[in-house]
Amino acid sequence: MHHHSIEANTYEKEQIADFGNRFLIGNGYMGVRGTLEEYGREQLAAVNLAGIYDRFGDGWREPLNAPNPFWMQLFTDGELTALPHMQPVSHVQRLDIHTGVHSRATEFPNGITLRTERFVHMRNPHLLCMKAQVETTCTADICLQYGIDANVWDIHGPHYAEMTLNETDGLLSALGTTNEGDIVAVCSMPSLSIPGSRSDETQTLKQKAVFSFTLPAGETAELTVIACIYTSKDTPDPLSAAQSGVRGQYYRSLRTESAGVWQELWNHTEVGIDGDDEAELALNYSLYHLLSIAPRHARSLSVPARGLSGQTYKGAVFWDTEMFMLDFYLAAMPEVAKTVLRYRIDTIAGAKDKAASYGYRGAFYAWESQEGGIDACSDYNVTDVFTGRKVRTYFRDKQIHITAAVVYGLWKYERWTRDWALWLEGGAEVLIEAARFYRSRLVRRADSDILELRDVIGTDEYHERVDNNAYTNEMARFVFRLAGEVCERLRSEHPAAYRALDDKLAFEPELPLFLESAQKLKRQEPDANGVIEQFDGYFGLENATLDEVKSRLKNPREYWGGSCGVASDTQIIKQADVEALLYLLPDAYPPSCAAPNYHYYLPRTEHGSSLSACMYALNACKLGLADEAYPLFMKSARADLQGGGKEWAGLVYIGGTHPAAAGGAYMTMLWGFLGLTADTDGLRFSPQLPKHWRSVTARFSRSGKQYEVKATQTGAECREIV
Amino acid sequence: MHHHSIEANTYEKEQIADFGNRFLIGNGYMGVRGTLEEYGREQLAAVNLAGIYDRFGDGWREPLNAPNPFWMQLFTDGELTALPHMQPVSHVQRLDIHTGVHSRATEFPNGITLRTERFVHMRNPHLLCMKAQVETTCTADICLQYGIDANVWDIHGPHYAEMTLNETDGLLSALGTTNEGDIVAVCSMPSLSIPGSRSDETQTLKQKAVFSFTLPAGETAELTVIACIYTSKDTPDPLSAAQSGVRGQYYRSLRTESAGVWQELWNHTEVGIDGDDEAELALNYSLYHLLSIAPRHARSLSVPARGLSGQTYKGAVFWDTEMFMLDFYLAAMPEVAKTVLRYRIDTIAGAKDKAASYGYRGAFYAWESQEGGIDACSDYNVTDVFTGRKVRTYFRDKQIHITAAVVYGLWKYERWTRDWALWLEGGAEVLIEAARFYRSRLVRRADSDILELRDVIGTDEYHERVDNNAYTNEMARFVFRLAGEVCERLRSEHPAAYRALDDKLAFEPELPLFLESAQKLKRQEPDANGVIEQFDGYFGLENATLDEVKSRLKNPREYWGGSCGVASDTQIIKQADVEALLYLLPDAYPPSCAAPNYHYYLPRTEHGSSLSACMYALNACKLGLADEAYPLFMKSARADLQGGGKEWAGLVYIGGTHPAAAGGAYMTMLWGFLGLTADTDGLRFSPQLPKHWRSVTARFSRSGKQYEVKATQTGAECREIV
Repeated sequence: MHHHSIEANTYEKEQIADFGNRFLIGNGYMGVRGTLEEYGREQLAAVNLAGIYDRFGDGWREPLNAPNPFWMQLFTDGELTALPHMQPVSHVQRLDIHTGVHSRATEFPNGITLRTERFVHMRNPHLLCMKAQVETTCTADICLQYGIDANVWDIHGPHYAEMTLNETDGLLSALGTTNEGDIVAVCSMPSLSIPGSRSDETQTLKQKAVFSFTLPAGETAELTVIACIYTSKDTPDPLSAAQSGVRGQYYRSLRTESAGVWQELWNHTEVGIDGDDEAELALNYSLYHLLSIAPRHARSLSVPARGLSGQTYKGAVFWDTEMFMLDFYLAAMPEVAKTVLRYRIDTIAGAKDKAASYGYRGAFYAWESQEGGIDACSDYNVTDVFTGRKVRTYFRDKQIHITAAVVYGLWKYERWTRDWALWLEGGAEVLIEAARFYRSRLVRRADSDILELRDVIGTDEYHERVDNNAYTNEMARFVFRLAGEVCERLRSEHPAAYRALDDKLAFEPELPLFLESAQKLKRQEPDANGVIEQFDGYFGLENATLDEVKSRLKNPREYWGGSCGVASDTQIIKQADVEALLYLLPDAYPPSCAAPNYHYYLPRTEHGSSLSACMYALNACKLGLADEAYPLFMKSARADLQGGGKEWAGLVYIGGTHPAAAGGAYMTMLWGFLGLTADTDGLRFSPQLPKHWRSVTARFSRSGKQYEVKATQTGAECREIV
Repeated sequence: MHHHSIEANTYEKEQIADFGNRFLIGNGYMGVRGTLEEYGREQLAAVNLAGIYDRFGDGWREPLNAPNPFWMQLFTDGELTALPHMQPVSHVQRLDIHTGVHSRATEFPNGITLRTERFVHMRNPHLLCMKAQVETTCTADICLQYGIDANVWDIHGPHYAEMTLNETDGLLSALGTTNEGDIVAVCSMPSLSIPGSRSDETQTLKQKAVFSFTLPAGETAELTVIACIYTSKDTPDPLSAAQSGVRGQYYRSLRTESAGVWQELWNHTEVGIDGDDEAELALNYSLYHLLSIAPRHARSLSVPARGLSGQTYKGAVFWDTEMFMLDFYLAAMPEVAKTVLRYRIDTIAGAKDKAASYGYRGAFYAWESQEGGIDACSDYNVTDVFTGRKVRTYFRDKQIHITAAVVYGLWKYERWTRDWALWLEGGAEVLIEAARFYRSRLVRRADSDILELRDVIGTDEYHERVDNNAYTNEMARFVFRLAGEVCERLRSEHPAAYRALDDKLAFEPELPLFLESAQKLKRQEPDANGVIEQFDGYFGLENATLDEVKSRLKNPREYWGGSCGVASDTQIIKQADVEALLYLLPDAYPPSCAAPNYHYYLPRTEHGSSLSACMYALNACKLGLADEAYPLFMKSARADLQGGGKEWAGLVYIGGTHPAAAGGAYMTMLWGFLGLTADTDGLRFSPQLPKHWRSVTARFSRSGKQYEVKATQTGAECREIV
């Protein structure tokens, strides 16, 4: 990799929220937003925890932000020396994606220069480490206020019903109890490199250690902080665990150890693109995000749609994980792939409850899944900009393709790893309950034998409550067929497991019904031009151009879809829908459908979701249009690097990182540009590189073996790394 | 009747639109709005024609207004002496509902008094007659400008692509050709009682006869006008017909003849209420409207929802006719009842086309029916007040209960008249195609045997796209059962007709399916309290009060229903829904359900439709709550007398008369207060009079016999009138 870090040399207040995402560090257990040490909740500083949620009042249930042990403020001769309070002489913020270290260096007009670096530990996920250096050009009285900031930023909080702050033997601690009764403990041990007085203060929601000293001109003072976070999800006594956690730890060795883990991860994943430094950086930066939010520490946990960048989207797990992130985890860290799939297996009870609550059988997975499979999705997920009223949306109740996405994830796992274990570990049960769900969701007209899936939302969320969405129907058919195949193999190869499962679920009489469903479920037949109608009646909608539809907006923030949106009654769609189907299930339609659908739907797609571009990029590659794929690939790869996406919806922050776009960029590289196909026979590559790329080098693993592939404009070589 | 007329002594510009409805005259062929002679399109003057429509550009298709032959303006010594130009000394506007004569008397400050009277002829429906008297207190030079005003008021016009104005031998004429090629001819012969000069002028869209004379103090000049209208729907040469029509006619004898027809009609219909003059007038005024729009001249024509008061609601026929007006026509003028039902029989082709266009079999009647059964209902029937955008509504495609309303009308005809003829004259075909339609609209879950009607709108239009609306399901069940019964009777009593019909429709194999449908169609079972859920999930909606919901309006004109309306996600409903079901099909649920549903739904009903109140009034009477029924009855009876309803939706006029409310008032009187039940054995009365009523006397006919019933607080006597 030519570049190992991203950096920003400018300082503008408007970039604070964006940089919080761009410079994020994380280790799967937590994410620490790329805000500066002196920042607080106003600047959206946050230490976002994975897999632990709270609800306050009627607000949305969302993941917890922990009290922030990276808080620090500097006073020089009594004057606050901090951003954004003081305009800096120079300021650099940097993220080293090879080591996961965030750093900043700020030169203030009063001669003070502040340098910090910090990281979250990649082996012990509870640890946070920081080093701060203060340097001065003229002798100054310095007051360095370090602390744990418990005045955490919440979107729908406050989430801590109680917060106890303390200091004992130099160890700071914050112990919070959430509205739901969970406990979060943060302990921190700061130490200063030079002599000085220390006084500890407990302020409202801030536990401080205040270091006062005179710093001679040209000298440097260094503060080191080792902090630790445990919650009641980890251990019954998180405070003791956090207290113990910081003891006997040394910054330098922790840093070396963590960087070593990073090095190991990069050894297996790093991509080289000869001829396009920008693409290379963007893609590896995308992988950085996927690596830093991977739940390596857990056995059953998934990745939220906004990663660990905050509370946006309720910290919930969407289909993004199975559809867009899983491919990277399969290729880079198969245990993480298993972990995120186990999360679905382990939350089947929640999916069954949800199905039952709507009057259906089987498993209807949460659209926005929190722990236990709770669906955090509200019936009112959009606010009307004209009236300020909540708008009834149907994502939760009608986007039934989510269940198929879970199954598709399990199937991808088997296909890539050639490991059947997950079916035996609960995957088969998920599959059967998924088929049951779709079976119970089917209707047929009293005068017809054709089965239909009516009143659904496809992946294109702008068109609500449609009938026979091609994507949904084919994904359901896929589930029905796969249920038959997996059960058949289970019966013949694992008869005891089969019997046990049938004892539990009594599914055997339903197998013919699954088969019948696969056969009779309505198929959207391609029209004379080979184009597949997205749902019943889609072709009858107004065939307006994207520009025309955009010109009808009366407010830039208004929602395009739903009942009154500008796109709703037109053929303009939010994201790949038929195109997603054709990518995911290439055998569902004849190959001759590939081109006409790509060309039909691409100009009608707004790409209002970060999940959209990569589907078109992948299909473009299949059509030999790598140069058309390139900008779509870059759109995915640069989603977080570039920023500038939608960050606010009215007064609600909806920004954050886009790991699904990152995953989509990886997919485009692997399945698109490299043209990898992986079946039981092995790996085959038919590269389709953009014209200006000389070569691509990528590493991945499969079935315990490491590979490196190098592709050029003319071919590819793949070798096993020993 | 104590009062034979309504009058207004005040003059305010704000009342012009309202008075145009209140003082309407009509004869079934046309309606003439109760505007003054000097008014034009700005004051919504209109001669509205029945059953002839036109469409201009992309506008809504709407009924024609004819050039107005009642136009006149008066100049005194060169000064325009007219309203609203001049503020009058006194002004009276009057409608004699016993004779159908509209009159006005206006005393102007310049000593001129203008009196006019006018009527449309009740025997020859093409004739319009007017007499105007000018009187002066001081000698004055009068210029009386009479003419045909072809500058007609249109809501979505202009509807005349061409207009030719002419004068020949004192006969004025206007000959218009519509955008759709229809021809409308208006001829008029004015004559003045005193000597004076006459000059005729053809102005833009106005053909005038200008009479100039000096009128001595204390003298009266009288202008008489006989006018005639024919269209190309009546005859191939409407101009000749209209020219002939005015010849040899004399105002006085025409007036006597027309009043005689009115007298005859009143002899069969007038209601006396001893103890409540206000209610008596309101009810007879309601009957006046139903009589003046009754298509007595036609064999197959129906009544629009806004009568003949203008172009509002596209002049279209709604379920209003069968459900709310038909009862009066059955009791007062059975031939008219047959005429409006024949309209449905004769428009079955339109209903079949509509069903086919949505992928269904059978007959799906138009929600807003124009000639031939064309559905004039737009997919965008509401404008969002916040954005000015058209809102997708589902009245046209999901309000499938309209077909059952048509069948219910045919069934009411048979039940009341004991005449089976309409079934033989096409009614049975309508019924079979109706059953076919519902059969094809049924779905069942793949895992269930229960048949369902999903994705419908009930009579409560605020809740769109609901499943298993109780009203719709039970009305469909009624259709399925009735189809079986009528076919069975046809087979046994009219075998030749049965065979002929089966040769045409080949319905015989479907009869068992209709029976199965009636048996298996989902029924909303009453809950523990006996309350019937309006549709699947209704009880789960927010149980907010009407006041609370109303308080959430941000704009008084905003639509309550649809996807974003204040009522949509609450239990607040627009109009009687379950209560309509319980009234119309009293055997569908046990009698014990009557009270709990009435008390549950009444406070949750906004009565946003003029069709709502009478359903509650009727059910209140059945519960012995006549005094609760009374204000609901008066709301219906006074709908047009009181005015003040919604008249404008943004810039679109939606006011007009409410004949369905008038019909609902009559229904409440007959079936509610008088407690009439009519079965094959005869007539029975169990009166439930409001406390302050001493007695009610009403006349009606059945099977060719005339009856008069007199009901008191203690009982009723009914006698046949010979």
